[in-house]
Amino acid sequence: MLRTHTCGQLRESDAGSVATLCGWVDSYRDHGGGLFVDLRDRYGLTQIAFNPPDTPEEFIEASKDLRAEYVIEVTGNVAARPEGQHNPKLATGDIELRATGFRLLNKAKTPPVSPSAKATDLPGEELRLENRFLDLRRPSMQRAMMLRDKITKRMRDYFEEHDFVDIETPILGRSTPEGARDYLVPSRVHHGHFYALPQSPQLYKQVLMMAGYDRYVQVARCFRDEDLRADRQPEFTQLDLEMAFVEQDDIMGIIDGLVEKLAKEILDIDVKLPLPRMTYDEAMTRFGHDAPDLRFGLEIVDLTDLAPQSDFGVFKSVVDAGGHVRAICVKKGAEHYSRRGIDALTEFVKGYGAKGLAWFRVEAEGKLNSNIAKFFSDDLLAQMGERLGAEEGDLILFSADKWLGTCKVLHALRTKIGEEMKLYDEKDMHFSWVVEFPMFERTEDADNPQAEGKWSAMHHPFTAPLPEHLEYLESDPEKCRAQAYDLVINGSEAGGGTIRIHDAGTQSKVFSLLGIDKETAQDRFGFLLEALQYGAPPHGGIALGLDRFVMLFGGIDNIRDVIAFPKTQKASDLMTGAPGKVDARQLKELAVKVDM
Amino acid sequence: MLRTHTCGQLRESDAGSVATLCGWVDSYRDHGGGLFVDLRDRYGLTQIAFNPPDTPEEFIEASKDLRAEYVIEVTGNVAARPEGQHNPKLATGDIELRATGFRLLNKAKTPPVSPSAKATDLPGEELRLENRFLDLRRPSMQRAMMLRDKITKRMRDYFEEHDFVDIETPILGRSTPEGARDYLVPSRVHHGHFYALPQSPQLYKQVLMMAGYDRYVQVARCFRDEDLRADRQPEFTQLDLEMAFVEQDDIMGIIDGLVEKLAKEILDIDVKLPLPRMTYDEAMTRFGHDAPDLRFGLEIVDLTDLAPQSDFGVFKSVVDAGGHVRAICVKKGAEHYSRRGIDALTEFVKGYGAKGLAWFRVEAEGKLNSNIAKFFSDDLLAQMGERLGAEEGDLILFSADKWLGTCKVLHALRTKIGEEMKLYDEKDMHFSWVVEFPMFERTEDADNPQAEGKWSAMHHPFTAPLPEHLEYLESDPEKCRAQAYDLVINGSEAGGGTIRIHDAGTQSKVFSLLGIDKETAQDRFGFLLEALQYGAPPHGGIALGLDRFVMLFGGIDNIRDVIAFPKTQKASDLMTGAPGKVDARQLKELAVKVDM
Repeated sequence: MLRTHTCGQLRESDAGSVATLCGWVDSYRDHGGGLFVDLRDRYGLTQIAFNPPDTPEEFIEASKDLRAEYVIEVTGNVAARPEGQHNPKLATGDIELRATGFRLLNKAKTPPVSPSAKATDLPGEELRLENRFLDLRRPSMQRAMMLRDKITKRMRDYFEEHDFVDIETPILGRSTPEGARDYLVPSRVHHGHFYALPQSPQLYKQVLMMAGYDRYVQVARCFRDEDLRADRQPEFTQLDLEMAFVEQDDIMGIIDGLVEKLAKEILDIDVKLPLPRMTYDEAMTRFGHDAPDLRFGLEIVDLTDLAPQSDFGVFKSVVDAGGHVRAICVKKGAEHYSRRGIDALTEFVKGYGAKGLAWFRVEAEGKLNSNIAKFFSDDLLAQMGERLGAEEGDLILFSADKWLGTCKVLHALRTKIGEEMKLYDEKDMHFSWVVEFPMFERTEDADNPQAEGKWSAMHHPFTAPLPEHLEYLESDPEKCRAQAYDLVINGSEAGGGTIRIHDAGTQSKVFSLLGIDKETAQDRFGFLLEALQYGAPPHGGIALGLDRFVMLFGGIDNIRDVIAFPKTQKASDLMTGAPGKVDARQLKELAVKVDM
Repeated sequence: MLRTHTCGQLRESDAGSVATLCGWVDSYRDHGGGLFVDLRDRYGLTQIAFNPPDTPEEFIEASKDLRAEYVIEVTGNVAARPEGQHNPKLATGDIELRATGFRLLNKAKTPPVSPSAKATDLPGEELRLENRFLDLRRPSMQRAMMLRDKITKRMRDYFEEHDFVDIETPILGRSTPEGARDYLVPSRVHHGHFYALPQSPQLYKQVLMMAGYDRYVQVARCFRDEDLRADRQPEFTQLDLEMAFVEQDDIMGIIDGLVEKLAKEILDIDVKLPLPRMTYDEAMTRFGHDAPDLRFGLEIVDLTDLAPQSDFGVFKSVVDAGGHVRAICVKKGAEHYSRRGIDALTEFVKGYGAKGLAWFRVEAEGKLNSNIAKFFSDDLLAQMGERLGAEEGDLILFSADKWLGTCKVLHALRTKIGEEMKLYDEKDMHFSWVVEFPMFERTEDADNPQAEGKWSAMHHPFTAPLPEHLEYLESDPEKCRAQAYDLVINGSEAGGGTIRIHDAGTQSKVFSLLGIDKETAQDRFGFLLEALQYGAPPHGGIALGLDRFVMLFGGIDNIRDVIAFPKTQKASDLMTGAPGKVDARQLKELAVKVDM
């Protein structure tokens, strides 16, 4: 090794010894007689003094050519810093290395993205991605990468302790055109045939249960060729697991233990087990969303019975049409949101399908002031106020729409207000489960009118219904709830899983309900259906979003900041230029051609 | 959990307790009054007794319907087996579970591939791959998968202990048409552009060193669209690492420690460190190969000076043309290889480019008997015999050809004879390094006459020469040796690495020697060349073949037996049918079409 210590290692107890460090020049101060350099590596910073008498004149001279990001190897005497020059913010702040010699390992041009933590202006993301080799040198990116490594390693340790077998499943798989778009790979050996990159190892892990592996885990790369939203990447990583001879409590129990371990070891937070559980129906009723942020209250109150008693026509007509009137009561919201603030909220909810925003401010003595107050009798206002627990200074916000419409609007409002009014501490972590999801939902697919309104699987077609709901498969699919469970952290779906169907009969029923005929099922999932015939054990599993975990545990908002080499929203790698042009010869061998 | 114990867990000390097991019926014996079943899971086998008085009559009756691979959950009393019925070969062989009840979890059709270890006939590989869900249920496949998991986990533990950061690099990368063929992925967003699946994370890991990560590791999936040999797969896995501020001894030292740990923890073998090292030149001289099998001797002896003194024209003309005459002396080979055996060896070496095989048998009193003995004087025979250390009963085999030709033939002979004469114990493990590889070799590319005879990089164009050989880059490239090192286990290259070039000047010289002009270099590796300008530290790394490691540590010959879902030699997955046809709509979105 060129070095004896890292730049984060030396302490006052090392004073008097000789050390060699390697690293990048983070900053330098020429004080005439010599130079101070902060030398940086991923472990920290150490102050290097190029001063007499330790440093020979020639090295002092040479040191004056050092510039930011030059790479050096420097040997010197470890010494306590002079009185008054200690830096308590730095782990090595009690010492300096008094150079006796150094070697320039490499020069650096002036970097377009400064890797120094002292740099105040972070350049635009495009420049950072183009120069990822510099951007990744920034300490905050290094912390994110090291956090990712640590979370992944702790996960793997945990699953090893629990007898899971880590098994690699193929990246070159078979296309099963459903869900998101597949990335395709033309075959050179079988012209006209294509591999598909996996959207998840779902079918392989079910096969592994049928093959007796009993407890499978993999940190699995998954691919979806979707129109990219801010928080999606074409390739992403999930902690993927599956267990046999279990019920859903066993899988949630395993994940409970993992969450407890990670919270303790990564954040030093004690989590109480079992994690709280809430049904899908309760989550939608109380919070309007299946991944509610439980760091704060601001629950939804249903006023469908009271609201039409007013003279406000909108509420009446919505309820007459089978819709709902629901509201949230924002404590001390009246003060926080002025008329202009409320106008902004009104614009905001329009983005979620609302036509406007009805509101009340609670004034002295319970008086309600609003754009629509005149339509309500005092008695009705009192009844509503009581149900909402309204107090002076509160702001009440309404949504009147179909059930799902009110959920959408009030969830959006709740999330926005929770953030704007700081209803929770940013360091809070809240972990919970949402369970008993519907098996089926009505397809919404503007591109495919034939599918519109038909049943589709809320998770995937291999999900098992609750045993006591098996009968609903035929009598009332809408009522049928699944053995499905989502892990929710701070209002984000951090993972989701289900118990799978392990008998061929139930599987057939579900396929037929989803309109998947025998031939199609055979073509897409033939091997799974075949495997079900040869001794498939009861099994289920879950997948956790690793990228999401790192974001949540690291308090990082941008998914591209937890991935070393991410793609842009247009699925490009700005550093390498992928995707790129290829030689005609390559395409010819694959028997494909570009056809714009 | 449906079970209280696994099928490998119960011992005599558990006798008297009640347990519930789940698993597959491995075999059953109806003895009239009841049934014995061996129940199997991945942990082992347990004997279940469906007999009175423990088992109620109804369950005895029901148990008679059990067939191979039925899945059951069975509860019963753990009891010591009766005297004389203990099975010392089974971990659970001292007990049986006397069933008090059971539940059929799933039935199974008669399996085309029997998962029972008792099955004597292993079906053909095609049937096994088609029914991988059954094949993977066989205990020997389960052992291989668990060994793979264990090796991988121990590797990860080791690198965590040594401060490595595990960083994921992209699967959707940029094509750099060099080396093997890339797998290509058409982009839906950028029509006419393609991603390439990585042949290795080489450039990314070098970027990570330039970004200051210092010690990177990843268990990385790699892809090569090659014509498949028996031991290659389109996708394979390597333990990939890179270190900064190091020299090659540091990297070999890290791997030495890993080998010591794995040998101890996986095989309970003590390995002495440092692992022995041999230069490339020495390996070729003594063994004719750069990954010599050092479990046995049978070294090559050079007779180029002596051989032409005979009247044997072939030797003379080969040496006159600048070639070599080299031989191996097979101890007691004369007995092992009859005339017919030697004929077989003669046929064998023809597959390696030899025109025939000259040989001597050493008979009583050092007399040499052979097809060509008449051409040699007694004195010359004596001199050659002495150099070869020939004794009565030995067999001497010659190769006369250009240097590399003799290497190829004698290495092939040595390997074959080592195996056939059992010159080593199958359980032996020999670990060593081969170092100081040539930087360059002359291109052999029948498809590309322009490249023929030009220099190509033996490893890759980023490999650094030995510091003391820098001058040969210009004066004598052939002489120039690289800071390159291969890990060799039992005659297999188990890994290979190099110190990389970290200064732009040397990198330019190497590119120009390889005929890569500036524009091409910029187009392919622009970001790397750019990163070299901004403070690149000295760095180097290595990649170990994980599939190969599992084969070597598990004594497994077939690479497809260490991969859960491998491809055939035609790159097909016989279970899923990948690669498959895709919808025209999918291709249209990608702006490609099939063009046979």
